Amino acid sequence: MAGRERIGAMRTIASASAPASIGNVGPGFDILGQAFDALKDRVTVHREDAPGVRLGKVTGCVPGLPAEPHRNTALAAALALLESQKAPFGVRLDVDKGVPVSAGMGGSAASAVAAVVAVNALLDKPLAHGALLPFAMEGERVSSDPPPWDNVMASLLGGLVIAARLDAAHVQQIPAPEGLVSIVVHPDAEIETRAARGILKPTIPMETVVEHSRRLAAFVAGCAASDLKLIRDGLDDVLVEPQRRFLLPALPAVKAAALGAGALGCSFSGSGPSIFAWAVEADADAVEKAMVKAFKAEGLKSRSYRAAIRSQGARLEPAMETVA
Amino acid sequence: MAGRERIGAMRTIASASAPASIGNVGPGFDILGQAFDALKDRVTVHREDAPGVRLGKVTGCVPGLPAEPHRNTALAAALALLESQKAPFGVRLDVDKGVPVSAGMGGSAASAVAAVVAVNALLDKPLAHGALLPFAMEGERVSSDPPPWDNVMASLLGGLVIAARLDAAHVQQIPAPEGLVSIVVHPDAEIETRAARGILKPTIPMETVVEHSRRLAAFVAGCAASDLKLIRDGLDDVLVEPQRRFLLPALPAVKAAALGAGALGCSFSGSGPSIFAWAVEADADAVEKAMVKAFKAEGLKSRSYRAAIRSQGARLEPAMETVA
Repeated sequence: MAGRERIGAMRTIASASAPASIGNVGPGFDILGQAFDALKDRVTVHREDAPGVRLGKVTGCVPGLPAEPHRNTALAAALALLESQKAPFGVRLDVDKGVPVSAGMGGSAASAVAAVVAVNALLDKPLAHGALLPFAMEGERVSSDPPPWDNVMASLLGGLVIAARLDAAHVQQIPAPEGLVSIVVHPDAEIETRAARGILKPTIPMETVVEHSRRLAAFVAGCAASDLKLIRDGLDDVLVEPQRRFLLPALPAVKAAALGAGALGCSFSGSGPSIFAWAVEADADAVEKAMVKAFKAEGLKSRSYRAAIRSQGARLEPAMETVA
Repeated sequence: MAGRERIGAMRTIASASAPASIGNVGPGFDILGQAFDALKDRVTVHREDAPGVRLGKVTGCVPGLPAEPHRNTALAAALALLESQKAPFGVRLDVDKGVPVSAGMGGSAASAVAAVVAVNALLDKPLAHGALLPFAMEGERVSSDPPPWDNVMASLLGGLVIAARLDAAHVQQIPAPEGLVSIVVHPDAEIETRAARGILKPTIPMETVVEHSRRLAAFVAGCAASDLKLIRDGLDDVLVEPQRRFLLPALPAVKAAALGAGALGCSFSGSGPSIFAWAVEADADAVEKAMVKAFKAEGLKSRSYRAAIRSQGARLEPAMETVA
């Protein structure tokens, strides 16, 4: 044990990747998240004597990132973990952004998650993977306070993840069907997360609650039982999507195109503007093309991505190790 | 085929049993039902030349039943099926009540379901088992209009059943864990179903909707994956139980007793007054005793029952066949 700790203490660099994610996942507003590893952020952390966190190189799909921890999700998450563990060192973080930001694809969460997984590897006594969730959440708080859990938990744990309570001890992966893929189409449009939350009504008619519950239960049961009929019945958001629809006038056309091409369901990814769909592999090409074409007909350029529903979540990646 | 029809046409008696049921099932208000085959109704139908339906012998746990079809769930269900199929005969129904009425145990549904399953066996061209649901619902309408689906669908199909839509084509069994039992304790108290529905608020705060959704998704995922932690997280009704709690002042004490003895969850069965709990088999004795004891401490006598979660649903039973 002492030996293991010393080897840990001597690690000076670590690198981790964390996938994009689909928040809400149809009827799962605020409680279901799904990792989407077609795109990933990668954070490489360098151990430095000076305490605290510093931004190093920024590469990838953004022109730059804020250098202040309270404005940068990776830095904020790394700092929260270092401070909680009273680490006797600081870190410099290189961030390679593979997940676009403000896309509804969990870009801020991916950076925060990759940062804590990488920093954790430098600790004398690394925490269990799942125990990193609260620190990644501190990163997500930079982009939205209180921070929604769905993207962070999905990016960390992989696959389809539920928050049975707002408590890390009650967050876990749930069974997801094999052989299904998710398609995410990111249009050239913007929806601000805070604004998307702000428009939600404070109360919901009981009939809507029951109809929403039907879909949620069907969706989750369908996933766990690999029952495509139940998934199709369930992958439909009657709670939040109707309230946010007007934020993206192209939604009805894109959704109709996806369903028409055989998708099992289609809705906003998180609070948009990206739209996701689920489909069996055989229909995925047609669904993806139909969604892009529908965006184009609505005057919006878009980029599309595809990944299996089942996936691994954040992980350590090889990094050139320097032994002090 | 013609031969099969003629044999069907010559059947003059048929008998079917249908189990009690737990409506709502924790967080599953109006969408989940569970068969509870510790208790059953049995309906025996006799083919008669005169069209229509008539009440024959009534036995079991009730002193008598109304003889008018619009006031008797078994008669109303049988009549709906006969009329829809333009049957060239009528039936006399003997009803053996094993499920108490006004108990929150699906007593009216069990009679309606047993009646349609038995009548179906007399038809020239019997319908598929699941296709009987709408006719059993016409029986349930006698006790509550519009009729709730949960008891009827569970009693017909067995096990844990979801209504993904209010449409028989979207009603189906979902996976339920093996090795778990449900306990139902029926106190000497009354709650009228219509009144229990009437007190429900027309709108629900969004935070409650989300907390309810967490539990429902956890419960269904836990059932399908046989994950006791998720079932425990999910078997908790924050939507309806808080609104109905005052109808049975003993509820908090009985619930606390059940949970204290190891139950996975505990709530009203349907709209009460019966209370159900789920438990692993090893805890079932302790849970059942604790619930009965708690009712007694609250001044209420009660009777308790126990059955596996997985069960078969309504079925034909042997009947002395008369060949005309």
